[in-house]
Amino acid sequence: MLLTRIRGPRDLDRLSPGQLDQLAAEIRTFLVEEVSKTGGHLGPNLGVVELTIALHRVFHSPRDKVLFDTGHQSYVHKLLTGRQDFSKLKGKGGLSGYPSRAESEHDVIENSHASTVLGWAEGIAKANEVLGRRDHHVAAVIGDGALTGGMAWEALNNIAAAKDRPLVIVVNDNERSYAPTIGGLANHLATLRTTDGYERFLARGKDILERTPVVGRPLYETLHGAKKGLKDFIAPQGMFEDLGLKYVGPIDGHDIEALESALQRAKRFNGPVIVHCLTEKGRGYQPALQDEADRFHAVGKIHPDTGLPISASGADWTSVFGEEMVKLGEERQDIVAITAAMLQPVGLDKFAKRFPDRVYDVGIAEQHAAVSAAGLATGGLHPVFAVYATFLNRAFDQVLMDVALHRCGVTFVLDRAGITGTDGASHNGMWDMSILQVVPGLRIAAPRDADQVRAQLREAVQVSDAPTVVRYSKGAVGPAVEAVGRVGGMDVLRRPATERPDVLLVSVGALAPMCLEIADLLDKQGISTTVVDPRWVKPVDEALPALAARHRVVVTVEDNIRVGGVGSAVSQALRDAGVDIPLRDFGIPPRFLDHASRKEVLAEIGLTAPDIARQVTGLVSRIDGRLDAGAADAEGAASSHASSTTLN
Amino acid sequence: MLLTRIRGPRDLDRLSPGQLDQLAAEIRTFLVEEVSKTGGHLGPNLGVVELTIALHRVFHSPRDKVLFDTGHQSYVHKLLTGRQDFSKLKGKGGLSGYPSRAESEHDVIENSHASTVLGWAEGIAKANEVLGRRDHHVAAVIGDGALTGGMAWEALNNIAAAKDRPLVIVVNDNERSYAPTIGGLANHLATLRTTDGYERFLARGKDILERTPVVGRPLYETLHGAKKGLKDFIAPQGMFEDLGLKYVGPIDGHDIEALESALQRAKRFNGPVIVHCLTEKGRGYQPALQDEADRFHAVGKIHPDTGLPISASGADWTSVFGEEMVKLGEERQDIVAITAAMLQPVGLDKFAKRFPDRVYDVGIAEQHAAVSAAGLATGGLHPVFAVYATFLNRAFDQVLMDVALHRCGVTFVLDRAGITGTDGASHNGMWDMSILQVVPGLRIAAPRDADQVRAQLREAVQVSDAPTVVRYSKGAVGPAVEAVGRVGGMDVLRRPATERPDVLLVSVGALAPMCLEIADLLDKQGISTTVVDPRWVKPVDEALPALAARHRVVVTVEDNIRVGGVGSAVSQALRDAGVDIPLRDFGIPPRFLDHASRKEVLAEIGLTAPDIARQVTGLVSRIDGRLDAGAADAEGAASSHASSTTLN
Repeated sequence: MLLTRIRGPRDLDRLSPGQLDQLAAEIRTFLVEEVSKTGGHLGPNLGVVELTIALHRVFHSPRDKVLFDTGHQSYVHKLLTGRQDFSKLKGKGGLSGYPSRAESEHDVIENSHASTVLGWAEGIAKANEVLGRRDHHVAAVIGDGALTGGMAWEALNNIAAAKDRPLVIVVNDNERSYAPTIGGLANHLATLRTTDGYERFLARGKDILERTPVVGRPLYETLHGAKKGLKDFIAPQGMFEDLGLKYVGPIDGHDIEALESALQRAKRFNGPVIVHCLTEKGRGYQPALQDEADRFHAVGKIHPDTGLPISASGADWTSVFGEEMVKLGEERQDIVAITAAMLQPVGLDKFAKRFPDRVYDVGIAEQHAAVSAAGLATGGLHPVFAVYATFLNRAFDQVLMDVALHRCGVTFVLDRAGITGTDGASHNGMWDMSILQVVPGLRIAAPRDADQVRAQLREAVQVSDAPTVVRYSKGAVGPAVEAVGRVGGMDVLRRPATERPDVLLVSVGALAPMCLEIADLLDKQGISTTVVDPRWVKPVDEALPALAARHRVVVTVEDNIRVGGVGSAVSQALRDAGVDIPLRDFGIPPRFLDHASRKEVLAEIGLTAPDIARQVTGLVSRIDGRLDAGAADAEGAASSHASSTTLN
Repeated sequence: MLLTRIRGPRDLDRLSPGQLDQLAAEIRTFLVEEVSKTGGHLGPNLGVVELTIALHRVFHSPRDKVLFDTGHQSYVHKLLTGRQDFSKLKGKGGLSGYPSRAESEHDVIENSHASTVLGWAEGIAKANEVLGRRDHHVAAVIGDGALTGGMAWEALNNIAAAKDRPLVIVVNDNERSYAPTIGGLANHLATLRTTDGYERFLARGKDILERTPVVGRPLYETLHGAKKGLKDFIAPQGMFEDLGLKYVGPIDGHDIEALESALQRAKRFNGPVIVHCLTEKGRGYQPALQDEADRFHAVGKIHPDTGLPISASGADWTSVFGEEMVKLGEERQDIVAITAAMLQPVGLDKFAKRFPDRVYDVGIAEQHAAVSAAGLATGGLHPVFAVYATFLNRAFDQVLMDVALHRCGVTFVLDRAGITGTDGASHNGMWDMSILQVVPGLRIAAPRDADQVRAQLREAVQVSDAPTVVRYSKGAVGPAVEAVGRVGGMDVLRRPATERPDVLLVSVGALAPMCLEIADLLDKQGISTTVVDPRWVKPVDEALPALAARHRVVVTVEDNIRVGGVGSAVSQALRDAGVDIPLRDFGIPPRFLDHASRKEVLAEIGLTAPDIARQVTGLVSRIDGRLDAGAADAEGAASSHASSTTLN
């Protein structure tokens, strides 16, 4: 085993070409065996084995910065930088599924949102320039899919403007982001791959490069006076060169020697260079290669030989949405669907199969998805943009200034809202119910079960003069939670045991079962509780303040950051109505959460029925004590211990 | 006068070429005369007179959609679509400075944030396709500067992918956004403009086009088999064609006949086309042409002959910041500055002159500005990104996931925070203190006067492990407001008249003088008031709950949307500390605000000292009444009338 002898990137230096190939094979076996046990991003990592080896032989991390976009393809990087215990990958206390500064000095970018790496690289390269660190290099690895994101363009435009600031951009071109990459750029890359000269170029690629002291230079100089077409014929670069970027490629991304040669020359070049590498997602693993949809982009636990999932989970939120969308599509010709390169993960694959002319995959381009939706709505259609909750952050300005300001009927369906857990800090969908609160006219639905997903999606697409949002959790959807009554637009989930109840418990979305459990626990303490599900959490239901006023305390529970969330909105609505009774808002504390299972994260932040019941019991007894002592003397309260500060 | 006879775009149809030139001249005279009286976006509109005339002759609005990016260049469009009373431009009841659906059926996009138009156009073109409206056309006008924004790239990538979906993109290339356009794209456009063949092409441009039945087609077909270089020589298009977009140009943007000819052909082409027009910002107005900084992009009231400002205003927030930045730059070599194409408007011009190697203009690319800043900070520098508050919305995800998650020491300086007024809904900086509340670790300073801008900027750049924000208003900075004491980190601006005060008034930023006035008014009602300025409004000062508990009521006043703002944060901090006393939060209601002066807007939304004092007086007397009636009976409050619902 060579792999276990690699403790750090410099251990790669003394391996022979044959040993490097052996190492690559060992890594592939390791990845299939280990990731099939834990689940994880298998396909992307199988594609970058040779590339990562070559990068670490050429660039000397951590002095040089080797940066990965959307860091789910950093497993090989982890293996080469001293992290070979994958047994608890993505689990509590185990390795993160992304780079992590806490894990290693070789990791830089932890953010899993795509298209950021070029901006990071540009910033670090500028700092090297300002501080005169001429021997520090920066290499940024970005997938062809991530190049469709606007940030990549903004960064390229700036990188190209600084012709003598060194920076190596490695385009990891596997013709797909999650799904096959789409758009004009994809077509352009395809042209580069299929140009007449390409086959011949690859064949003699290394030879040409050997004779080329600096990337592309002599070629460029020789041909500079000649017709551009000729140069294109030999080294097609098209738009990258139009922007002023040197281009090398395409390189066989599974040929370590060719990669090293190209990267060495790129590193020595005194300016920005693009190295275009062709890789195969899922390389070397038959089940992945046979999966045309996404080449095992991210898998759960699978059988390593067959690639088949080990446990088939029940109905999940995503598929409930996906099936209802097909029905809606049948019923209404004006409904169209939008995805940002995640057709299948957000459940739009069935809709796409049924209505191929009414679905738009815009690439990794959430901003465009939102603005384009405003245009579609203005043109008379009703677009439904389904996206992971955390990724909608990218389009906040467009939701506000394009969709809402223009009163467009657009429905945003936020999958993976709330705590998602194992994918770590940047995948939790814990921001939406706070930042979207400020958007005038926008309405937010938080369905509590499958029936409500269907019902509220239908209510959402009825709204033609404002944006609507339907947000739900990741994974399996729980059992139906029936309403026992209605107040205003709110479902009553549980009536209080007494005529004069103590607590109004406002339950948000999938937390309904937990809230019913809290009510049971409170009951045992003699605290009688009403549980309501407002269904639409923005705006606050008009009937809520009067209902609240019939209780002594209001408690809100939400799967969203506490700051500015539903609890804050309810609190403000009560103030505005002059209902000045105590309120406690439970939710996610305002910090980034480490990876662990959803259940472990909830326990860690105290978002469990026993924790919340205990705090509410304490609050109610303090109020009792205060009332017994007489008078609404606020001053005394300041010294009493906090009720929900453990959450802050 | 021809202009006054134009009641709608179809009135243009019967004008002769000579009359069209006369009309253009009349429009320029009108613009200089009228805009110099009111202030407004003069330079951009002087540049698009002929282009707008040609667009409205070729495209039949409102059936066809003529869309403007960053609609400040829509004045000519307004003149041609029945709106010729510019006397109250941007003022209350007058014309908006941007397109406005309320004004005209010819207006579509009201958002003043750049780079959105291509997404809008793509969405509308898709709707035309789905609904089979083959005779409906879409023309999108975008400046070369706005092409540097990532959204433009995302849209272009999608537009190029649909080769048979008609859409006309007019690139209004004046070589500058606010300032000269920068980056690789700018260089590429410059190449297009200066290619050898260009002069000749322009000379015989019309001839070639006349003989070209469909845009570029015969040229393309003739040369398709030939060397690409030859085609580039005659019709240089470079990267646009690499993306698969047909390219026409460059066209003289002040030659109506040439413009019409190109647009007619583009309109007939059955797919996406780029028409590249060269225009001159400030065309025909000497003072604008002589202003190299921004060609009179946006002016206040000026003398029409000289272009000199009529009233020289005193020190403004922007220049206070700009001067302090120069001092900080002298003192600390690690401080660098970033602007998104607005060097001078955000006050970084002095810094740029003094430290040209330590300032970065990234183009209209707020996302890149933030991510690049994370890279700069990781590389060991302290970047200060100065930007209008409303534009930071574009970079929300990057502030959260790149800067904050990675604990980067980056300072964001938000100019034009709060109500800016005359530029309308999308220019008000009323969102930042809400959406940034959710960002873990980020600190927000709201300086109340010039001294505090300087002091808090210095405090901000001291923070090396978290993002900081310094936000201030637009326009003239008021007189210094001295502190009379300190509690925790909060400045006490006014001590209460009695030992046992009634109201704790929390003043945010520039509203300090108004808050002192409120306190005076309350005093007259026998309500004794403490006024504090927390200076840093996020996180809530630890000393605030205990201070609040020594009062009977807490009132917060902020120049930000009420939802999730400072008031909500204070309310939550009080709850968490168990301080359950009534709080009222005054701020901007959750709706989009029509254009009017800042003072008029404040009056309209009730954010004035008398309004707030009256409401607080009512609240205090209701509490007195309730206490007199005995017991903290919450239920009764529900029926009492609301205290601040007029703000909702």
